[in-house]
Amino acid sequence: MTGPIVVINPNSNQAVTDGLDHALAGFRGAARIECVTLAEGPFGIESQRHVDQVALPLSALIETRPDAAAFVIACYSDPGIDLCRATAKVPVFGIQESGVLTALARGDRFGIFAIAEASIPRHLRYMRRMGVDHRLAGERALNMSVDESARGEGTLARLTEVGQDLIGDGADVLILGCAGMARHRVPLQAALKRPVIDPTQAAVAMAMGAVLA
Amino acid sequence: MTGPIVVINPNSNQAVTDGLDHALAGFRGAARIECVTLAEGPFGIESQRHVDQVALPLSALIETRPDAAAFVIACYSDPGIDLCRATAKVPVFGIQESGVLTALARGDRFGIFAIAEASIPRHLRYMRRMGVDHRLAGERALNMSVDESARGEGTLARLTEVGQDLIGDGADVLILGCAGMARHRVPLQAALKRPVIDPTQAAVAMAMGAVLA
Amino acid sequence: MTGPIVVINPNSNQAVTDGLDHALAGFRGAARIECVTLAEGPFGIESQRHVDQVALPLSALIETRPDAAAFVIACYSDPGIDLCRATAKVPVFGIQESGVLTALARGDRFGIFAIAEASIPRHLRYMRRMGVDHRLAGERALNMSVDESARGEGTLARLTEVGQDLIGDGADVLILGCAGMARHRVPLQAALKRPVIDPTQAAVAMAMGAVLA
Amino acid sequence: MTGPIVVINPNSNQAVTDGLDHALAGFRGAARIECVTLAEGPFGIESQRHVDQVALPLSALIETRPDAAAFVIACYSDPGIDLCRATAKVPVFGIQESGVLTALARGDRFGIFAIAEASIPRHLRYMRRMGVDHRLAGERALNMSVDESARGEGTLARLTEVGQDLIGDGADVLILGCAGMARHRVPLQAALKRPVIDPTQAAVAMAMGAVLA
Amino acid sequence: MTGPIVVINPNSNQAVTDGLDHALAGFRGAARIECVTLAEGPFGIESQRHVDQVALPLSALIETRPDAAAFVIACYSDPGIDLCRATAKVPVFGIQESGVLTALARGDRFGIFAIAEASIPRHLRYMRRMGVDHRLAGERALNMSVDESARGEGTLARLTEVGQDLIGDGADVLILGCAGMARHRVPLQAALKRPVIDPTQAAVAMAMGAVLA
Amino acid sequence: MTGPIVVINPNSNQAVTDGLDHALAGFRGAARIECVTLAEGPFGIESQRHVDQVALPLSALIETRPDAAAFVIACYSDPGIDLCRATAKVPVFGIQESGVLTALARGDRFGIFAIAEASIPRHLRYMRRMGVDHRLAGERALNMSVDESARGEGTLARLTEVGQDLIGDGADVLILGCAGMARHRVPLQAALKRPVIDPTQAAVAMAMGAVLA
Repeated sequence: MTGPIVVINPNSNQAVTDGLDHALAGFRGAARIECVTLAEGPFGIESQRHVDQVALPLSALIETRPDAAAFVIACYSDPGIDLCRATAKVPVFGIQESGVLTALARGDRFGIFAIAEASIPRHLRYMRRMGVDHRLAGERALNMSVDESARGEGTLARLTEVGQDLIGDGADVLILGCAGMARHRVPLQAALKRPVIDPTQAAVAMAMGAVLA
Repeated sequence: MTGPIVVINPNSNQAVTDGLDHALAGFRGAARIECVTLAEGPFGIESQRHVDQVALPLSALIETRPDAAAFVIACYSDPGIDLCRATAKVPVFGIQESGVLTALARGDRFGIFAIAEASIPRHLRYMRRMGVDHRLAGERALNMSVDESARGEGTLARLTEVGQDLIGDGADVLILGCAGMARHRVPLQAALKRPVIDPTQAAVAMAMGAVLA
Repeated sequence: MTGPIVVINPNSNQAVTDGLDHALAGFRGAARIECVTLAEGPFGIESQRHVDQVALPLSALIETRPDAAAFVIACYSDPGIDLCRATAKVPVFGIQESGVLTALARGDRFGIFAIAEASIPRHLRYMRRMGVDHRLAGERALNMSVDESARGEGTLARLTEVGQDLIGDGADVLILGCAGMARHRVPLQAALKRPVIDPTQAAVAMAMGAVLA
Repeated sequence: MTGPIVVINPNSNQAVTDGLDHALAGFRGAARIECVTLAEGPFGIESQRHVDQVALPLSALIETRPDAAAFVIACYSDPGIDLCRATAKVPVFGIQESGVLTALARGDRFGIFAIAEASIPRHLRYMRRMGVDHRLAGERALNMSVDESARGEGTLARLTEVGQDLIGDGADVLILGCAGMARHRVPLQAALKRPVIDPTQAAVAMAMGAVLA
Repeated sequence: MTGPIVVINPNSNQAVTDGLDHALAGFRGAARIECVTLAEGPFGIESQRHVDQVALPLSALIETRPDAAAFVIACYSDPGIDLCRATAKVPVFGIQESGVLTALARGDRFGIFAIAEASIPRHLRYMRRMGVDHRLAGERALNMSVDESARGEGTLARLTEVGQDLIGDGADVLILGCAGMARHRVPLQAALKRPVIDPTQAAVAMAMGAVLA
Repeated sequence: MTGPIVVINPNSNQAVTDGLDHALAGFRGAARIECVTLAEGPFGIESQRHVDQVALPLSALIETRPDAAAFVIACYSDPGIDLCRATAKVPVFGIQESGVLTALARGDRFGIFAIAEASIPRHLRYMRRMGVDHRLAGERALNMSVDESARGEGTLARLTEVGQDLIGDGADVLILGCAGMARHRVPLQAALKRPVIDPTQAAVAMAMGAVLA
């Protein structure tokens, strides 16, 4: 396949897109990976309204990219995933789905770092829909702003602390429940001595499996 | 990471290893992938005894490769997976587990092509252990020898016929339940108009996700 | 409570709204029930795109009705249900969810009449999210147009025939998987000798439970 | 339909029946609702023996009411539900079943107030039979006598306290696990800021859906 | 332990009790086993009413036997099981529960021979309550009278034929869903080449495990 | 049946075999029971490697005993269970599987005493494979050596303490998760006032059911 894997950041914050681009650098040898910003997206996807409002724009963006070999929707709520799949003629991966499925290959029970308390029920409904919620050990909120979580010096310390709680809940593998925390993956893995999954990397890896084979 | 992804063929048939090597050619840009044969393996893994007898040799092979960044056990019965994970200091992927998890990102209910009737209950127990058997639409045997399935001209026709039955069972994504049928993936996908998963490719993609990030 | 139960037809076909109004006549003694049309809706909701495109307009309509005691979204795909619940300060009922839950009180395993084959996977994902798919005996498509299904003389005969198949699948209670087939409920019940659930009536009954008490 | 919905209090305490009658006042506009006492019942249903001893008398009572359009068995243990269904020619609703199903339309994970510790395992078996126990956040006992729970001034305070614990368990909707606590529903809902389900009201609403349509 | 295992036939047909006595002859070396008839039982337990009407008499009988080391309720509907457990100070085993659990140790998916079509939904509810219905391959009715099934020459032929259907459903172990078919177990096992479980023998074995240890 | 039930201790510690022999004394009236040691086994089975290394020797031992009527693999990890079943022409029981299934007939939710923390994930995977993990209340480690657990005076006190925690987790029946703690069963049962299952006794009882009938 010659087309790129198009990773769509459904929010309009270009800094997040740039972060995705950086986090995927290691994957670039075998496949072309292009990170794009959904101009119509909100600055951050933090509510059910944000989730629902990007479905149609995501689908529209997909229609402008007939050259893509696969798409990744890079927001942990997997907004518009069903519509994007109905629209695209190529595989579409959601990062929550890919992150959770990948975690199931790395441990028995997974734990999730959520940015905000409010998104936990939304994630739980989605995991029930996947039929894998019985392997969830726990999900806990960092209670930081997205901005803070992506940059703040205190983030790794907070992740480590919440990660210990998730391990106490029974988790033996952990998922960063947000598109923008990839840079904490390796140090957090070292601190917790457990695999840590960045969901965008997980989705891109699955996309590579679909398009390179 | 600089070490290779080591894909182990747990049977001693070098032709199968060569086939794996060929099937993974597309993945070679971003990661080093090395396919090795388990010298102590039986010529084919066709029974529970074969499954159990390779566990310790697989673990021993893993100990000889401290340079590996990840391992893939390339037999659809995922032999020795628990021991290999206890042995290795790096991630270990089984191709059944990876193939099934990947299928869950490509469709709602999956169907499986088994080589032989006798392996179906073994696979079912394993999927129950994963906790995803409720998304299985059906598994059907090709009733061909492994040899035949890898080479025979009639194989694609047989796969297409059984694939139609699996679609009739409710499957919207299909898994090749064997390490040696990758070359049928693309034509079968075209014939059935449904995604077809090669489990070794799925496992290697997951391994890339773990080591490249 | 003094406000009305507002039943929203998310498509723009006023005839469907009128049909809902007629089907709910029997409920009017104890509660005010108002059936409204979503002007921005498509003429019929027949695809994932239709489902996604009405979410925001439904939410907007809800905001214009602070007087409502409860809302019912009268389309079997339960479009925009999560957003409507996030928007409304009063209970919101989806007719698929209410229809399925009500069926669980009337039989052990339920069967569903879908209008079109294409909506079956969408329904299945939603039932998995509810966690009740293990009590589904089967869902079968009528393969009629919505228009035909609502009016055609042949509809009852077709429902009876498909209903027999669903009973053969193990169903002891049946759900009309569409907002517009209420008038077939009583004769179909007589023909099949099994309870038949109209999902809009089921949702309105639940809404009455929430607001009258 | 012209017959009444007959709500049967399976214990012989007329005060409980009168309480039911009062709690259902709001439903009387659209349907006739008649609350009756099972003369043969124990004064309260507090043990497995009580549950089993009312099954045949309930069935006998049902046979004396060929005029009924539906029955509601108003005890949270749903005593004799299978026999009553085999006996009646019209729909029969149990309040536990109806209460739990209704809760599933109001929240993601439900919590239950039990009167006594001893009934919790009985309820759990019944929810497993329904196949919805995986959505139970928790059940906690008030550890009050039925009498106290129905009248005592401290009851609302106790319910509020236990309700906070259930919310801590993950519940976002709560069920009063007894036929006699309806009068606490509205104030408790206000105190906890979560929907509270009275199971008898839930069952009568479902019965209305079955008979009015 | 010195008391007997008391096996109660909840119907009043002494010939069934004698049959149980005969079927348990092989177990008599290590434990005293006493088979008794519930005088108050119906001649056969064939309906939900029969199931419910024996609960209290079974409990009363249990109270007359303080010498028993354990009880077995020898009817496949496990009538009164919860009450008998609440009454007895020693373990009580139901034959459906014991038969199904034992089957899970002998195969992956079990099939059941029911005497009559009408009891299948009752059994299914009970297996859901146990939480093991996902391992059920199928249940099929013999459609013979109990009398016929216990004696008739055609019974083995009929069992063999239905057994082949159950194997076709995916069953690799079979359960005789009735207390009176033990004498067909060994020949049926030979005919089907699959383990066949007599549920009374399974329950008595479990009872021996509880009392001999 | 005339052959013995052969109980195999898969570790090479003869004292454990003697303990099994002692624990099964009560079962000897009705069946011959022979306890044998797997000479090739490790001194104790404490890791995944130990589990995997005994599979082939267990199968070989089984082949030397064509006289056996049934086999019991007396290690709580059920090592080699699939291979032993493929090898033997008679029933094979694993003690974890038998212990858990037996517990399901004695209570609603079971708790498990593990010897070591490290075996808990292994047990959990196996219970998921059985499909009964949803009835697990909890598993807690004694954190004693096997040696200590079998003899030490403090063992009963430690079991009682951990048992109280398991009851706090919701367990109403408890399983000794090891082949060597049978002698604590009766006193522990008295201390905790809950049924306690010795898994080897449970497996031998099931084996008796299979061979005596």
